[in-house]
Amino acid sequence: MLVVRKYGGSSVADAEKVFRVAKQILEVQKAGNQVIVVLSAQGKTTDSLIAKAKEINPNASRREMDMLLSTGEQQSVALMAMAIHALGGKAVSLNAMQVGIETTKTYSNARIRTIHRERIDNELERGNVVLVTGFQGVNMLGDITTLGRGGSDTSAVALAAALHADVCEIFTDVDGVYTADPRVVKDARKLDEISYDEMLELASQGAKVLHCRSVEVAKKYNVKLVVRSSITEAPGTVVKEDSKMERMLISGVAADKKVSRISVLGIQDEPGKAFEIFNLMAGENVSVDIILQSTGHDGLQDISFTIGADDLDIALKALEDNKERLTAQEIAHDDNVAKLSIVGAGMATNPGVAALFFEAMYDSGVNIQMISTSEIKITVLISENDIDAAMAAVHDKFQTATVNMRKD
Amino acid sequence: MLVVRKYGGSSVADAEKVFRVAKQILEVQKAGNQVIVVLSAQGKTTDSLIAKAKEINPNASRREMDMLLSTGEQQSVALMAMAIHALGGKAVSLNAMQVGIETTKTYSNARIRTIHRERIDNELERGNVVLVTGFQGVNMLGDITTLGRGGSDTSAVALAAALHADVCEIFTDVDGVYTADPRVVKDARKLDEISYDEMLELASQGAKVLHCRSVEVAKKYNVKLVVRSSITEAPGTVVKEDSKMERMLISGVAADKKVSRISVLGIQDEPGKAFEIFNLMAGENVSVDIILQSTGHDGLQDISFTIGADDLDIALKALEDNKERLTAQEIAHDDNVAKLSIVGAGMATNPGVAALFFEAMYDSGVNIQMISTSEIKITVLISENDIDAAMAAVHDKFQTATVNMRKD
Repeated sequence: MLVVRKYGGSSVADAEKVFRVAKQILEVQKAGNQVIVVLSAQGKTTDSLIAKAKEINPNASRREMDMLLSTGEQQSVALMAMAIHALGGKAVSLNAMQVGIETTKTYSNARIRTIHRERIDNELERGNVVLVTGFQGVNMLGDITTLGRGGSDTSAVALAAALHADVCEIFTDVDGVYTADPRVVKDARKLDEISYDEMLELASQGAKVLHCRSVEVAKKYNVKLVVRSSITEAPGTVVKEDSKMERMLISGVAADKKVSRISVLGIQDEPGKAFEIFNLMAGENVSVDIILQSTGHDGLQDISFTIGADDLDIALKALEDNKERLTAQEIAHDDNVAKLSIVGAGMATNPGVAALFFEAMYDSGVNIQMISTSEIKITVLISENDIDAAMAAVHDKFQTATVNMRKD
Repeated sequence: MLVVRKYGGSSVADAEKVFRVAKQILEVQKAGNQVIVVLSAQGKTTDSLIAKAKEINPNASRREMDMLLSTGEQQSVALMAMAIHALGGKAVSLNAMQVGIETTKTYSNARIRTIHRERIDNELERGNVVLVTGFQGVNMLGDITTLGRGGSDTSAVALAAALHADVCEIFTDVDGVYTADPRVVKDARKLDEISYDEMLELASQGAKVLHCRSVEVAKKYNVKLVVRSSITEAPGTVVKEDSKMERMLISGVAADKKVSRISVLGIQDEPGKAFEIFNLMAGENVSVDIILQSTGHDGLQDISFTIGADDLDIALKALEDNKERLTAQEIAHDDNVAKLSIVGAGMATNPGVAALFFEAMYDSGVNIQMISTSEIKITVLISENDIDAAMAAVHDKFQTATVNMRKD
């Protein structure tokens, strides 16, 4: 078997943890497998590098941020190689340039285009565990890019796809995918299986267990993905095409606090204004999520939309710089907001799900600012202060509903 | 003018110092120059990475050490780019892979073979200050190599040579080359000029102001080299071919404490035994310095030699592993030793220099273990405990001697 494993930063935070992972890896290899391991930066390394950068330049260029942050993963793979050597094993560390992980041009949020397999194949043939830096790639200019926060998951899945690995195991500090964040919701349950689509909606709506793009890539190349705990080594949750899980009403509740709302107010009500705004955002590589357009009064309209909190400064600057052209009277924003989502394939065939969801929101007295839906997902934007209470209320409502339906 | 500048780790240790250097660089560029800047890792970064590695594996492979340590310089260049941007300047950071700094295969102590200039030329044409990681390169396997401690000096000189720069300025925490270490010898004097050969002997004998190999490269390609302080920005010391300095008896006194002595005792007195030992050391990439071979008694001989303190473990292991083949009775070592050297072109024409030197050693009661000489250098190996006193005594003796000779 060819196994790709990914360990997050908390799994390799110190020498003791590095050795624990090194032992796990060697056991997998000794059982007759070829092993590729993708690592994130140790513990708080990335955060402390970001703090260093902010001290020097709060608006640091994304190219230079990528150059800086990519060093964290390189340290991790080198240290892991040393640990495996200390245990008598064979291992070699490779960064994205050495592997040849080619990405799109976009700094800080690049997408993997191609992975060259020659170097990895050679090292596997020599009997090495191959340790690859997660989170990063190289673009056509020869510059280092990063894949966005949590991008190491995507590195692992893309490697598994490129090398036709038998399984891609993502090791984290939780032991699988839960119906809701177990730190917030007490009776959240672990799922044994989940489909790509459901996992995708959960991930894109803020469930931190997997990087959204990694699930997309897994679905596209049909990579068998397993989410497991690096501490318990329990079986975890399998993400795959045909999830045989019992059809629950919803498979999970997710919250995302790293979101901001921007409102462009008092725009001339002419065709093309919305296009201009979103074109401007695309030019700055800012992803727009929920959009609300209000046909206003006096020939004026308002357009509100949500973006990732990290993009707020860039987005506001671009809008302010083009305020006149957009004929906007005011650019307002609110970063004390959060998204709450419910996800589940069962939703499409159960019209009552939306009603139950909004009932839960009403019961807990939470005000809804924006709504967005897909066939298997409902998302609402609410005040960040309400998010934990709302999440618990929704989870509770659906637990009860599921039990009730089984009785029927 | 095309200017190459190198700043050491202490010059960029924190945000304030990074900005001081960023301002200096922009001033040089504004004066109409193209500027390439080579940076070392910040402050104690390299030391703390080494400590991290030692915690995991005290005998870490050199390949993985290079992979780990090279991240320090990459952080420095990225942060410096951010600082220059914050001041409104244009800059881009490049690591050794991006520039194409090709080295020999040897990890931890590689030599630069070729530097590709395309990427740097392109960035200079765009008006960028080009920030290049010092200390590192890439070998023919595509692996990261480092040039040995202090190797950033060599990176800078090699870049200056490859790009035909008009000057290569090495900025450090001292304001030039001194006749002895000014922290140890109170009346050490700063030199305005020194020849490549003299600088080479001083550097190779432990004067920490310049990396030895950097002076070799400067001499070979006739690079105008200037050693200056990043704090005072005073003119510093010029290193060049025909130094017009007054012909002093000696130009400097240097001490090197990072040295160990190994003695291979009781070897069969047969031809080829010395060759076998030094072949063994070469195989481990250990440089041997002073050698002392004693023709012994009972058909046995002893061979002693000095090596860099960092290589002691590797050297001892290689010798112990081959003890039988070498017919050695015992492998002894001492790392409480240090080298003291006097260097000066005037030495060749003044037979009295050696006498004065040994008189100073005798006056200060220091026992000499080994001696090595060249046309412009005398080196002795003594106990590390004696080194500061001996250095002061020798410097003092030659100050007096120089004054006496001028009176003549």
